[in-house]
Amino acid sequence: MSEQDTATDRPARGISRRRLFGLAGIGAAGVAVGGVAGGAIARATDDPATATASAASDAIAFTGAHQAGITTPQQDRLHFVAFDVITDDRDVLVELLKNWTAAARRMTAGQDAGPTGALPDNAYVPPDDTGEAIGLPAAGLTLTVGFGPTLFTAADGRDRFGLADRRPAPLQDLPPFQGDELDPAISGGDLCVQACANDPQVAVHAVRNLARIGQGVVSVRWSQLGFGRTSSTSTGQATPRNLFGMKDGTDNLKAENAKALDDFVWVADGDGPDWLTGGSYVVTRRIRMEIEAWDRQPLREQEQVIGRTKGTGAPLGQKAEFDPVDFRKQQGGRFAIPQDSHVFLAHPTNSGTAILRRGYSFVDGSDGLGRLDAGLFFIAYQRNPETGFVQVQKKLRGDRMNEYIQHTSSAVFACPPGVRDGEDWWGRALFTA
Amino acid sequence: MSEQDTATDRPARGISRRRLFGLAGIGAAGVAVGGVAGGAIARATDDPATATASAASDAIAFTGAHQAGITTPQQDRLHFVAFDVITDDRDVLVELLKNWTAAARRMTAGQDAGPTGALPDNAYVPPDDTGEAIGLPAAGLTLTVGFGPTLFTAADGRDRFGLADRRPAPLQDLPPFQGDELDPAISGGDLCVQACANDPQVAVHAVRNLARIGQGVVSVRWSQLGFGRTSSTSTGQATPRNLFGMKDGTDNLKAENAKALDDFVWVADGDGPDWLTGGSYVVTRRIRMEIEAWDRQPLREQEQVIGRTKGTGAPLGQKAEFDPVDFRKQQGGRFAIPQDSHVFLAHPTNSGTAILRRGYSFVDGSDGLGRLDAGLFFIAYQRNPETGFVQVQKKLRGDRMNEYIQHTSSAVFACPPGVRDGEDWWGRALFTA
Repeated sequence: MSEQDTATDRPARGISRRRLFGLAGIGAAGVAVGGVAGGAIARATDDPATATASAASDAIAFTGAHQAGITTPQQDRLHFVAFDVITDDRDVLVELLKNWTAAARRMTAGQDAGPTGALPDNAYVPPDDTGEAIGLPAAGLTLTVGFGPTLFTAADGRDRFGLADRRPAPLQDLPPFQGDELDPAISGGDLCVQACANDPQVAVHAVRNLARIGQGVVSVRWSQLGFGRTSSTSTGQATPRNLFGMKDGTDNLKAENAKALDDFVWVADGDGPDWLTGGSYVVTRRIRMEIEAWDRQPLREQEQVIGRTKGTGAPLGQKAEFDPVDFRKQQGGRFAIPQDSHVFLAHPTNSGTAILRRGYSFVDGSDGLGRLDAGLFFIAYQRNPETGFVQVQKKLRGDRMNEYIQHTSSAVFACPPGVRDGEDWWGRALFTA
Repeated sequence: MSEQDTATDRPARGISRRRLFGLAGIGAAGVAVGGVAGGAIARATDDPATATASAASDAIAFTGAHQAGITTPQQDRLHFVAFDVITDDRDVLVELLKNWTAAARRMTAGQDAGPTGALPDNAYVPPDDTGEAIGLPAAGLTLTVGFGPTLFTAADGRDRFGLADRRPAPLQDLPPFQGDELDPAISGGDLCVQACANDPQVAVHAVRNLARIGQGVVSVRWSQLGFGRTSSTSTGQATPRNLFGMKDGTDNLKAENAKALDDFVWVADGDGPDWLTGGSYVVTRRIRMEIEAWDRQPLREQEQVIGRTKGTGAPLGQKAEFDPVDFRKQQGGRFAIPQDSHVFLAHPTNSGTAILRRGYSFVDGSDGLGRLDAGLFFIAYQRNPETGFVQVQKKLRGDRMNEYIQHTSSAVFACPPGVRDGEDWWGRALFTA
């Protein structure tokens, strides 16, 4: 095999997959046009002159006061994974979190998961990267970790890791809601990682390598791919459309509104516990959409259910998407925005709160009943689930949209603050402070 | 609702979703940088000056001698669907195929599925497009139709549509292969549509609208998303990596090799039946990869199993990816490419045939046993399944790769030739000639 060692594009030990571009004479920013998985290599090496920096291919900083992947302008693709911890050994778990953090630092920078990469100098040892992202840029990858209720107190009541007294009071299984059709096998979890990227291969690679590193310590409980974002988390982003064909997330909290984020997203000093200050809670709900029933409805019915027009996404009674909602406006003796519409019930004016949504559309094959198994994987970040998602969801009891949706999974996790530069790791304050 | 009718970006009846760009002063080519679903709108309308034509967003011709989506340079994302026909009425089925063809013509051109679109003039009727692709470009969408064995002879032996004597002799269920773990619920089907695009939202939208149009006539039997291509079908494309981390499809048949396509892909005049001349057969196999076991293997083992290096994808014993395979070359007294490697066994030199591969990586959540449910959705086109996939697959009986894979679904369909301009429709020659 020694002959293989001289292959021209083989990176030296410790050189990132991004350096591959550098070694070929291309700027480190890489190129990703049209979301071509793997195509970036060809374009970069085939024609260096065309290499230009592209926001979609760039790296997003892993460290900071808050974790990336919450207010980061929402990337296009998702791989979300929930793990069960299958060891009772706290030290083993801590070691994993340290190893995961090291891998996350590398992968979000566009590097291999470990220093030897997929091509170790010694071909007789397993690689420490699985290789499918060789040559791909960072693609805006963010990895966001969360700790579930069962990490603190196991389902059987045991305090496996000595964390029970550090459990945040709001970190509770969500209460049952009308219309829940939850499948326990794809709900809950001890740990979660949300991988968002502009290239699905990069997001899948990251989750797969974290699962690989965790072999024998954690077990994949459930995992969800999302093919397209259904929210904007920055004012610079266009509002995407969900599988109801409607613009979704127009009035979402945005990264540029620091005051609202402090009020509604970040756990503040004094909220408790201390280890979570600067963090957030994430709620996930897999929401199956009854798209066949929806598609049979007249346009007017669809718009009345949502409370916005399908074309522009304007609130009913207004002209343009970002016109303010006016719940008092009447048309023909009725409220322009029906009081049982989704927008009316979910809007902060009526829910009294706000959440940062970060959901993705999914199609998970078919349902065995002749229909696509499609919908929205809802993700929301909030300062407190009780005054965030739970409060909003209770308001939605009479939502006309409920006729067209079913919640099939549910989970909640406490997401610690951001990892700092240096020796910090996911959960350090939780396990050591 | 009359107020909504004046919304500025609402397309007039019959105007395509692409015209949306035109009406806003943007060239019809659209823009798609980084595969941003929905982002194209924002970029186009925010800054017309940056609008440039991009191959990834362009439309691919729907009509031609052969169906698009076979030798078309392989797009990045897949939604594949198999339908059961739930009517016994031949006329109703023919009407559906005509309606599907009309919708496919429109959607591959970047238009709504039907003339009224998602925004019919009369808001009291259901839209004839579901809307989630409003504003998105064609994104290279191809829709490729196929007819399964059960369309000609139902599982219970009935000749539901008077097609039994038109069934191509090679259109038979594939024989069992060693290691098959097939799930009948996600195998077979009366009809299939392969939707490939560079934006997954565009591919999903197309399948979803065909399913919508088919309500009451067909039922979704199974459906598969693929997040990343694992082959190249054109010499201009970089070779992507599969979930083994290996370059895949280096020696695939390519669109530029017309002689090989005539030999191995297209059904020739005289092969019979006449209605299939210029068509092809597609074989699909959902191949679960045991990635956890794979990831524990040393690099050398991985390369010996495949027969290529992981770094460059060079055949073992050679330097560069496209160096010719040399099965006689020895290193240290052994064949450089092991005779039980995948490349050795599958290569035309040994299999005596060739197929056009067009597969995609998938992750379908988790498997309930703590692992990702991940692998390769294998798609191959050939002139005859017996001398194509079946012949190759028989050669793979001793493939060392078999230790790491399981085939979990199987299907075969006869794909008619391309639709012609004018009044032609999917299956016209089959049903009327």
